[in-house]
Amino acid sequence: MTKAAITTSTRLIAILTLSAWMMLSFIPTIAHAQMMTFSRQDLMDYTPQNPFDRLPDGRPKVPDSLMERARGLSAEEIWAGLEDKKFRNQYADGFHVLYPGKTMVGRAFTVQFMPERADVDDVAEAKAKAHGLPPLTNQMAIDMLQPGDVLVVDLFGKKVDGTIVGDNLFYYVMKATHGGGLVVDGSIRDLDGISEIDMPAYFRSVDPTPIGNVMLTGINIPIRIGGVTVMPGDLVVGDREGVYFIPPQAVKDVLDRADETHVHDEWTKKKFDEGKYKSSEIYGSPTDPKLKQEYQEYLKKRLQEIRSKRDSH
Amino acid sequence: MTKAAITTSTRLIAILTLSAWMMLSFIPTIAHAQMMTFSRQDLMDYTPQNPFDRLPDGRPKVPDSLMERARGLSAEEIWAGLEDKKFRNQYADGFHVLYPGKTMVGRAFTVQFMPERADVDDVAEAKAKAHGLPPLTNQMAIDMLQPGDVLVVDLFGKKVDGTIVGDNLFYYVMKATHGGGLVVDGSIRDLDGISEIDMPAYFRSVDPTPIGNVMLTGINIPIRIGGVTVMPGDLVVGDREGVYFIPPQAVKDVLDRADETHVHDEWTKKKFDEGKYKSSEIYGSPTDPKLKQEYQEYLKKRLQEIRSKRDSH
Amino acid sequence: MTKAAITTSTRLIAILTLSAWMMLSFIPTIAHAQMMTFSRQDLMDYTPQNPFDRLPDGRPKVPDSLMERARGLSAEEIWAGLEDKKFRNQYADGFHVLYPGKTMVGRAFTVQFMPERADVDDVAEAKAKAHGLPPLTNQMAIDMLQPGDVLVVDLFGKKVDGTIVGDNLFYYVMKATHGGGLVVDGSIRDLDGISEIDMPAYFRSVDPTPIGNVMLTGINIPIRIGGVTVMPGDLVVGDREGVYFIPPQAVKDVLDRADETHVHDEWTKKKFDEGKYKSSEIYGSPTDPKLKQEYQEYLKKRLQEIRSKRDSH
Amino acid sequence: MTKAAITTSTRLIAILTLSAWMMLSFIPTIAHAQMMTFSRQDLMDYTPQNPFDRLPDGRPKVPDSLMERARGLSAEEIWAGLEDKKFRNQYADGFHVLYPGKTMVGRAFTVQFMPERADVDDVAEAKAKAHGLPPLTNQMAIDMLQPGDVLVVDLFGKKVDGTIVGDNLFYYVMKATHGGGLVVDGSIRDLDGISEIDMPAYFRSVDPTPIGNVMLTGINIPIRIGGVTVMPGDLVVGDREGVYFIPPQAVKDVLDRADETHVHDEWTKKKFDEGKYKSSEIYGSPTDPKLKQEYQEYLKKRLQEIRSKRDSH
Amino acid sequence: MTKAAITTSTRLIAILTLSAWMMLSFIPTIAHAQMMTFSRQDLMDYTPQNPFDRLPDGRPKVPDSLMERARGLSAEEIWAGLEDKKFRNQYADGFHVLYPGKTMVGRAFTVQFMPERADVDDVAEAKAKAHGLPPLTNQMAIDMLQPGDVLVVDLFGKKVDGTIVGDNLFYYVMKATHGGGLVVDGSIRDLDGISEIDMPAYFRSVDPTPIGNVMLTGINIPIRIGGVTVMPGDLVVGDREGVYFIPPQAVKDVLDRADETHVHDEWTKKKFDEGKYKSSEIYGSPTDPKLKQEYQEYLKKRLQEIRSKRDSH
Amino acid sequence: MTKAAITTSTRLIAILTLSAWMMLSFIPTIAHAQMMTFSRQDLMDYTPQNPFDRLPDGRPKVPDSLMERARGLSAEEIWAGLEDKKFRNQYADGFHVLYPGKTMVGRAFTVQFMPERADVDDVAEAKAKAHGLPPLTNQMAIDMLQPGDVLVVDLFGKKVDGTIVGDNLFYYVMKATHGGGLVVDGSIRDLDGISEIDMPAYFRSVDPTPIGNVMLTGINIPIRIGGVTVMPGDLVVGDREGVYFIPPQAVKDVLDRADETHVHDEWTKKKFDEGKYKSSEIYGSPTDPKLKQEYQEYLKKRLQEIRSKRDSH
Repeated sequence: MTKAAITTSTRLIAILTLSAWMMLSFIPTIAHAQMMTFSRQDLMDYTPQNPFDRLPDGRPKVPDSLMERARGLSAEEIWAGLEDKKFRNQYADGFHVLYPGKTMVGRAFTVQFMPERADVDDVAEAKAKAHGLPPLTNQMAIDMLQPGDVLVVDLFGKKVDGTIVGDNLFYYVMKATHGGGLVVDGSIRDLDGISEIDMPAYFRSVDPTPIGNVMLTGINIPIRIGGVTVMPGDLVVGDREGVYFIPPQAVKDVLDRADETHVHDEWTKKKFDEGKYKSSEIYGSPTDPKLKQEYQEYLKKRLQEIRSKRDSH
Repeated sequence: MTKAAITTSTRLIAILTLSAWMMLSFIPTIAHAQMMTFSRQDLMDYTPQNPFDRLPDGRPKVPDSLMERARGLSAEEIWAGLEDKKFRNQYADGFHVLYPGKTMVGRAFTVQFMPERADVDDVAEAKAKAHGLPPLTNQMAIDMLQPGDVLVVDLFGKKVDGTIVGDNLFYYVMKATHGGGLVVDGSIRDLDGISEIDMPAYFRSVDPTPIGNVMLTGINIPIRIGGVTVMPGDLVVGDREGVYFIPPQAVKDVLDRADETHVHDEWTKKKFDEGKYKSSEIYGSPTDPKLKQEYQEYLKKRLQEIRSKRDSH
Repeated sequence: MTKAAITTSTRLIAILTLSAWMMLSFIPTIAHAQMMTFSRQDLMDYTPQNPFDRLPDGRPKVPDSLMERARGLSAEEIWAGLEDKKFRNQYADGFHVLYPGKTMVGRAFTVQFMPERADVDDVAEAKAKAHGLPPLTNQMAIDMLQPGDVLVVDLFGKKVDGTIVGDNLFYYVMKATHGGGLVVDGSIRDLDGISEIDMPAYFRSVDPTPIGNVMLTGINIPIRIGGVTVMPGDLVVGDREGVYFIPPQAVKDVLDRADETHVHDEWTKKKFDEGKYKSSEIYGSPTDPKLKQEYQEYLKKRLQEIRSKRDSH
Repeated sequence: MTKAAITTSTRLIAILTLSAWMMLSFIPTIAHAQMMTFSRQDLMDYTPQNPFDRLPDGRPKVPDSLMERARGLSAEEIWAGLEDKKFRNQYADGFHVLYPGKTMVGRAFTVQFMPERADVDDVAEAKAKAHGLPPLTNQMAIDMLQPGDVLVVDLFGKKVDGTIVGDNLFYYVMKATHGGGLVVDGSIRDLDGISEIDMPAYFRSVDPTPIGNVMLTGINIPIRIGGVTVMPGDLVVGDREGVYFIPPQAVKDVLDRADETHVHDEWTKKKFDEGKYKSSEIYGSPTDPKLKQEYQEYLKKRLQEIRSKRDSH
Repeated sequence: MTKAAITTSTRLIAILTLSAWMMLSFIPTIAHAQMMTFSRQDLMDYTPQNPFDRLPDGRPKVPDSLMERARGLSAEEIWAGLEDKKFRNQYADGFHVLYPGKTMVGRAFTVQFMPERADVDDVAEAKAKAHGLPPLTNQMAIDMLQPGDVLVVDLFGKKVDGTIVGDNLFYYVMKATHGGGLVVDGSIRDLDGISEIDMPAYFRSVDPTPIGNVMLTGINIPIRIGGVTVMPGDLVVGDREGVYFIPPQAVKDVLDRADETHVHDEWTKKKFDEGKYKSSEIYGSPTDPKLKQEYQEYLKKRLQEIRSKRDSH
Repeated sequence: MTKAAITTSTRLIAILTLSAWMMLSFIPTIAHAQMMTFSRQDLMDYTPQNPFDRLPDGRPKVPDSLMERARGLSAEEIWAGLEDKKFRNQYADGFHVLYPGKTMVGRAFTVQFMPERADVDDVAEAKAKAHGLPPLTNQMAIDMLQPGDVLVVDLFGKKVDGTIVGDNLFYYVMKATHGGGLVVDGSIRDLDGISEIDMPAYFRSVDPTPIGNVMLTGINIPIRIGGVTVMPGDLVVGDREGVYFIPPQAVKDVLDRADETHVHDEWTKKKFDEGKYKSSEIYGSPTDPKLKQEYQEYLKKRLQEIRSKRDSH
């Protein structure tokens, strides 16, 4: 497909198609050019429990419908759901949160930088060139983003020279991911400009310097953000407290459990509104058998309503 | 009074009555069950200058009318009033403030936790059981809250496992205290949910873990928050900077002095608006005798207005 | 001109005139009374490249028209402009920002405090008295502020007793500078009151104590704020990230360059909106010759529009 | 016994006797005078598993012989021993360690301070006076120390005005405890002088100010040091990393287990010295059955040697 | 070669031979078992400028003779030498230094851990098992160490559960590397025991917990320590300030330059001893032509002495 | 005096004479070349209470005999002495202390740096050149040091590029000041080399970079170190805790008072050794009248001994 042909399509399809095209053309080679390699096969090997389709680059593709449901998740629900499955490290906080009232949901697209070291970087750049790839920069990674992605970047907490994007590239990321989001263990610049763009973002600091003195060492490889090992394709959920990285195989259970918690909280507050009970008579679960039964019936009814409403969409 | 009877009353009265009932039934025993004891008599011994009535649990009861006036206090006024009386340690800051623009006012209901230690906790729990008390948890304390209380909790700055409440119990505290407030030298969870509930809160951090690895060691005992010794019944006032704990015997003077400061600031800004004076000619007090007289007259007039307006309510 | 005469003028003119009068009467003597001296001649010697007029106290006077243009500057533009001229240290951050969405622009009026030391302070105060000057306090400096000034204060990061102003003096500063602004490497008090006053402010912390245990050691001398040497008369620009101190001789170039960057960002986002390009095809500069030409033409046209619109005002 | 009589005894006995006498005379009253009370009965109630005698003040008295054995303990051994018994919070670090190469061992004598608050302190001091007690100061507590004690003080991390002792009182503590030791979550002063006195000490900081702006609120009550709940009579063991607070009932098991670990480490290093094995063939435990047997025999033999040597003393 | 045969050799040779054997047997497979792979070929590709032999695992082998010379290097010399070659990021500090007076020199053997994540770790462990490898633990990596190695470990600053070794394994590392050394961006345990073992070590903190809640993700892959990208085979030099990671190709030049600096400092101090000169007349370089000549002659003579003395060894 | 002539004198006299010569030749001009000026007259004006001679540069010259006595001072004595005279800010801590067991004593020679700013620095350098002065560098200041000086440097806490000296210049400072000392609110480099040179030093950090990106702005002007205003000529005393800056007029009283404190501590410990007293019976002062008298006599006798011994030297 020529570029000319693309311009005649609608904007959205253009982005989707172009991105897929770029991605596909990169995939066979990118793993050879970056220092830390993690091939499509590696990615599939290390995510064997993925119950969903995969993106062309091998990442698990949590379905859009589940991503939509995840927008209603609360911290308590995710934490409890992850703990059930013995995932105790999948939460990172301590970020500046651009839009505290707006939940971020998307598929992790991971990028790793390491401190610049000319002898090593020269080899990587030569490899990239030999494979017909563009220079290994933040933009090279950004150009591979897909709709629904959240860009997750390990810049090892760097502030000065650790700015993954300014307002122009932030704008591009918003367009390319359809407002997915950004998590960077590093900084951003042009906060004034970025504050006018509608995409969630989590960053450690802000600085006016452009990115520098670092080298891109991996795209869609396992990376570390705070105390979390993030895998490409993880479902990323950010609230006003921090960011959760949910392994794809846990998504469905977390969401189902969350429905129940929603109803539980609804009922709990309703009972508190009645003003007749001590908190311990109602919460965590009712002590009185009659209340217990009342709750069970309420739960059953509300879950049915929620699910039938969901199915009707 | 049976529980059935309670349900026929209005919601508000129900809470008041029920809480008082619970409190009264606990008071004789609670001091024997918790590790750090401070009996009703202790509390009265250590607050001998209290000029007001007392709550059933022995805490001084700063009157509702003074609490209402305290909502208009500014930091400068409280600080100056406390310093006058040689109280130099009654201020704590460094909190996250849930609602920066909303003054928090209430009577301190104090709770202390210490790090879990099974041998000690077992004894305390056995004592509680022997006295017919519920387990010594955060909910046991929360169930004793009264309207007008601010829940003040020493969780020694704990973040992970140091979450005094999530959104459900925060909601209960709001109902039980009639929107009084929360100060915790520790953390909360479910900030998203809590952000939708209308009650001031001051906390050190946010975490998704539930409270754990701690033991409740005291209710309504003297506790430490930052550099402050907080006594049960202190008037708690929180602004967007931090939290003041005002001994009951100082409340009246602080408030009266604040009236004067209000008028002083009003006049000062009015004179600055005139654009004729250097700041030092007007503030802290006018240097010119004529201005001094003008100020004195203004002060007298305005104080009369304020007081007569207050009396007419 | 008598004070009586002043009261018949309009408020604005009064302030301007009175301030100028106060300033002029202080200038010959103030340098002799403060410990760290930097005379009008020193100031002129150390800012020889100033292309603009000077204020009566010797500070370069960046024209109001350029200050107006500077309100549209973004961090990226200033940083790039300063770096071009090898100014790499003229940025300070880590402040609390009172109004994150409001750009601060003004001329630096600098004040330096040092820790109190009675033997030294006594000498300084005696000198001040001997020269007919008021006591060396924060108010003495504040009374010298001019419209368009930003008050820039070195209080060496002091929190307790390091509060340069409360709400009354903050109000005065707002009036005297016509809403210029405040930068203090120290604290303020009465944040509740200050939050109702419409002037940008950058401060390290908030505390209820009044200023104390310090001595004023210099007015309009070179001072240090974070990692910046600030000269009296620097153009101060604050955004939601931090504060830039632009040497007067660099102002014009920074602004002209910014026009171009504005257009560049406008065009970049426009192209991103089209959805046909990878980010690297457009940003930093277009790779395709045709796009490059398109951009050059767009730039030329838009710059003309901007400038003609500016000239017509 | 008259004071004159005491002077004719040997110095050591004098101290012992005098201290006991002082202690005994205080015990019935001290609990009534301090704000946070924890009576002899409370102490006994909360340490029911204590297998040893008790000191006159009710604290468990870990025998001198076990204290002697504890001087050979290593961090690894204590940690493992405590974890076996589910004590996971009994370790505190982050101190300055006066003598890194010298193990501290003793029985916890606890003291709690809280921020000064005149209204409360006045009541406590009046109570002390009414009971014929000296003023509630650091020296009052220090005068109650017994041989074998470690003074453990909660001064809530205070540096300025938080100095529990200078060199004179540190010298006294050394004499009174027979070189037991000091742990303070606060500061000391006169480090130069203290560095010449032979007693282990763990402190947060050093400051030249004397103690002040605090009030003594409890002696031999449960206190918090870092993340540990310390009970009076705990066995305190300090190494160059930090301080362990071992509940008396766990001491014997920890020590017995340590003997085995000592031998294990001895054998492990001996095998490593042979240079024939990978670390994983030997450590944690040997994988080869023959090596396993060799180790078991070595362990048996060495334990017998250690124990018979111990018994012969 | 049988194990029995090994025991008849001398200890040193045994270790060398055994280690080499172990290493060789692992090399083909280890890269397939760890999550982050960096094969022998990758390592050779990314260190093309290595002027020396290579170890069996592909790492550049800086010769023992140069390592010996490196023991005399000072921080200033290394820094200047690296800067000459545009290596500005090869220094890390902020460690606890076990032996401040003892220079550490060795070849980097790198290990990377990431936060535990069961789904990923299970795959890695299954792969290890399938390749006949031992479990992926710290000991597996330690068993691969060679004489002259410094163990360099990325444990992302973890304190609790981040202890790479206790005294037993530290002892083994000392034996296996012939006292090479340890650098860990994480913690160690049993500092008391470790303090008796003669090997340099650099660590972030000390903790009594064993290593846990992490997974080994790479051996001899590029890792990050502070702001440094460390390559396997880098020459590691530690002084009392911090640690330098010198790319092999830069070692020779750094050392030659250091000889000159040694002589320069020798001469500089000699001249200062004469007491006739201002520092600026002598240092950085003499200003007076006669002194300059004197220095040049001294330099020439001393360099000849140093080199002939070196050659004679 | 020619340089040749100097070489025939003894080393010590040479330094003294040369330094004085250099100093004298600089004094009239240096104040004009540095940005922050503080002339010889300013210095005399601001230290009017100085009871001693002055150095040629105008600094008070605390006599050598008093400096000698000051080597025996302890923190407690200085603090108490300064507080008596209302000097509450003259202490700074938080330094790395090179020789913890060695007291530093000397006269403050102050140096101030500020962040580099080319436009300002160019003017200063041009002024220096016009006055025939060397470039404004750290070495220019170091070349002015006198025997008995302590070099006190404000480098605003800078670590990277904030190294006032490496081992060569540290060696020169040691020679020039006769082992006086160094206090820098900044860093040093070459700690290994410096650790072999016998001079006390207090610094914030260590870094391998040379000094840079700063400009020298003042020599022997009032500077700020931590929370202290340091005046040129202050008596600097450093112990293992921190550094005191004693105004010359307070030196004699502090020392006399210290004699008494020495005796007091001597007596206190002697009484504690007797084992007959509670600490509160002896310390702060004896409560028993007979003990009080005993102490007074002891004090009198010992003071006489100390003084006569001192006079006999």
